[in-house]
Amino acid sequence: MAVINEKFLVNTRGFTDIIDITQNVKSLVYNHNIKNAAIVVALAGSTAGITTIEYEPGLVKDVPAILDELVPMKRNYHHDDTWHDGNGYAHIRAALLGSSVTIPLIDGALLLGTWQQIVLIDFDNKPRARNINIQIIY
Amino acid sequence: MAVINEKFLVNTRGFTDIIDITQNVKSLVYNHNIKNAAIVVALAGSTAGITTIEYEPGLVKDVPAILDELVPMKRNYHHDDTWHDGNGYAHIRAALLGSSVTIPLIDGALLLGTWQQIVLIDFDNKPRARNINIQIIY
Amino acid sequence: MAVINEKFLVNTRGFTDIIDITQNVKSLVYNHNIKNAAIVVALAGSTAGITTIEYEPGLVKDVPAILDELVPMKRNYHHDDTWHDGNGYAHIRAALLGSSVTIPLIDGALLLGTWQQIVLIDFDNKPRARNINIQIIY
Repeated sequence: MAVINEKFLVNTRGFTDIIDITQNVKSLVYNHNIKNAAIVVALAGSTAGITTIEYEPGLVKDVPAILDELVPMKRNYHHDDTWHDGNGYAHIRAALLGSSVTIPLIDGALLLGTWQQIVLIDFDNKPRARNINIQIIY
Repeated sequence: MAVINEKFLVNTRGFTDIIDITQNVKSLVYNHNIKNAAIVVALAGSTAGITTIEYEPGLVKDVPAILDELVPMKRNYHHDDTWHDGNGYAHIRAALLGSSVTIPLIDGALLLGTWQQIVLIDFDNKPRARNINIQIIY
Repeated sequence: MAVINEKFLVNTRGFTDIIDITQNVKSLVYNHNIKNAAIVVALAGSTAGITTIEYEPGLVKDVPAILDELVPMKRNYHHDDTWHDGNGYAHIRAALLGSSVTIPLIDGALLLGTWQQIVLIDFDNKPRARNINIQIIY
């Protein structure tokens, strides 16, 4: 058994930018020719999250719209009184979404549905460069 | 160390059907007589999720009611313009909830509270058959 | 490879009390001098959750405020008809947040942003003592 660490960089536009990272994860994982493992996909940072969703143009619009109703960008947050950086909403969305997912690798394939992609969602209010870390635990 | 894969099938009614899968997970895990491990419970698919909750009749009504306020079934979603399948809400709920949980196995017992069950929540707008995958990492 | 289990106790005030447990986790993990591992931080129980957030006084006020709009404390829940303990909201918040996080340990350091802390959020409507369990999987 071992833990293998991999990573890659993603440039985002911020503002709840949703980016499909499935191929990045697959190519780094499949390169090791491991059959069965747990794959952790994680990022460091408190204003972005990782989840899975069907990555298609409709949902890429719907998710920010719903989140703007639940945790609005334009609202008074105590966080912004502290830092004046205007991204209080981003911290709360990220805390609710979570910053990692764990996906089984079974017989050499990631356990994902046909219409299920791994996505980075960057909530921050400016473009960011995000390191995505992968752990292969086998 | 090894990773053991197990799975089982659950038939759901959809429409935010909440199904207690704790006994299914326990029987597959405990059968291996392993003392200490991390247990990943995961599903493939973008319209259902996995979490833990106290599985009792009140919450089984409350969770769909709250979710229908946060991410309503009846609302215009761009997703439904794309696919016309009317389950845009289901994709968003699933992305927010997550499609896997990781639960420690300690001294041969899953780390769950007395009133805490592992549940599959199927958000889709029709009955579905769902494969639930378990990984025992030890 | 092995799985190492550790744990520690946290006393909370309940009512969406947010407690920074990063140092507790770091000291138990770093004590083992392991370089690369997946770290699972988990609790047993259905009225508290674990996530990461920037732990600062503003967000510690903002998160309960937002959650009280999304899943209000004062509202009729079927759960409370069953148990009359008034914490239906706590169960739903916990189910949405999740009861564990998995954080990579890379080259001896937890993968956390500069302004990202691991927090326990206790939603229950009374003070509680919570065991937090850690698994080091390597």
